[in-house]
Amino acid sequence: MEVPKASDVLANELRERILDGEFPEGTALPPERELVSQTQMSRTTVREALRILEVQGLVRIKTGRAGGAFVQRPGRDSVATSVSLLIRGQQIRLAALLETREAIEPFCARLAARHRTDADLDRLDAANKDIADPDGSLASFLQANVDWHVAVATASHNELLTGLMTALSQAIYTATENEDFVDAEVRRTTVRAHKSITEAIRAQDPDAAVRRMGRHVHAYAEAVLQVDDRTEIEVPDA
Amino acid sequence: MEVPKASDVLANELRERILDGEFPEGTALPPERELVSQTQMSRTTVREALRILEVQGLVRIKTGRAGGAFVQRPGRDSVATSVSLLIRGQQIRLAALLETREAIEPFCARLAARHRTDADLDRLDAANKDIADPDGSLASFLQANVDWHVAVATASHNELLTGLMTALSQAIYTATENEDFVDAEVRRTTVRAHKSITEAIRAQDPDAAVRRMGRHVHAYAEAVLQVDDRTEIEVPDA
Repeated sequence: MEVPKASDVLANELRERILDGEFPEGTALPPERELVSQTQMSRTTVREALRILEVQGLVRIKTGRAGGAFVQRPGRDSVATSVSLLIRGQQIRLAALLETREAIEPFCARLAARHRTDADLDRLDAANKDIADPDGSLASFLQANVDWHVAVATASHNELLTGLMTALSQAIYTATENEDFVDAEVRRTTVRAHKSITEAIRAQDPDAAVRRMGRHVHAYAEAVLQVDDRTEIEVPDA
Repeated sequence: MEVPKASDVLANELRERILDGEFPEGTALPPERELVSQTQMSRTTVREALRILEVQGLVRIKTGRAGGAFVQRPGRDSVATSVSLLIRGQQIRLAALLETREAIEPFCARLAARHRTDADLDRLDAANKDIADPDGSLASFLQANVDWHVAVATASHNELLTGLMTALSQAIYTATENEDFVDAEVRRTTVRAHKSITEAIRAQDPDAAVRRMGRHVHAYAEAVLQVDDRTEIEVPDA
């Protein structure tokens, strides 16, 4: 028989009260000693419950005189974290990651063309500038690449898609940090593709945006998987 | 200045060791007293670190004589939980949920048509049978509906897409548990659409599968949002 842990029971109760809006964002939960006397639970149990909420991104615990557990909205970060854990923990194949991006990202580009603001365009342009820097290191190219993809997702103004794309982009970055793959030719192709997708988003042309993004992520996936295969074949010969 | 908490430091270290495969699935982490003596941290800190890993779905803590923190792979459940928290915490608009499904699910149907096994087809057929039951309650209709959508994702044989679709389907279930919306006509339309998509998957026709699924989820989204609007308009008149 599974006996629920006291700290889970308390964490669940506080979680529901936060999500129901009883404790609005930025306010503090009752202090530890008050929760101890209200619940008759030990101080350790109460602290554990608050830490659980912190790990789930529902509160931020500040120490010191003006300290306490301050309510925050669980955001993209917690989705990104859990998707990253899924990817690493299940050792999700790079192919599955790339497929998932092919599913999500063209649709993000379509929404971005509909909903983009001037600030969104500024973010896209800034990332494109960094990507095009011929003297940039591999790390700075890949980071600017992630920034651009996250900027497209942000321009969709769909918080859930943005959270998912943030996690995916980061995971794909890590998996493709490979000089063999990201050569000068891949860089040039990426610069061109990003520019033409950005223009479709700027021109508020959803059909061009979805089509161009579909082509770009599909071509990128094919190229990555080819290098992946080649690497796997070459290793035994070495 | 932010001083990292000791329990976070220990949780991060153990997490990396788990994800790097040092502790395979099913094995136990070193017992509490050993971690205490290894790390010179307090028993409370060690317990807190283990609880953090439990909340993240990386270990399962069993109490009693054969107890301990047993390693497990973080799976779809932790993604489903964090997506649900994001949805509730950010009060993600139902429209954003439905949009995300429109992005992901047609692609799942395409992959399902390519990779489906006989077992996948059995799951789809079983769910369709329950959906078509004219005497089924709203709850059983909606559950069979979720089962069918999850079965399509499972048939994609992409673990990440399956995890995401499981989380999304559950959230959409909760948001559309509404007799006003799910009337006899919606049920009939759903039965027909699911059948024709299932046939495309059975026939291994990716293009038909993606097109039909795209139409189905788009039509469903439009219908849900119309009811949503109508409900919002009607409330003040009541």
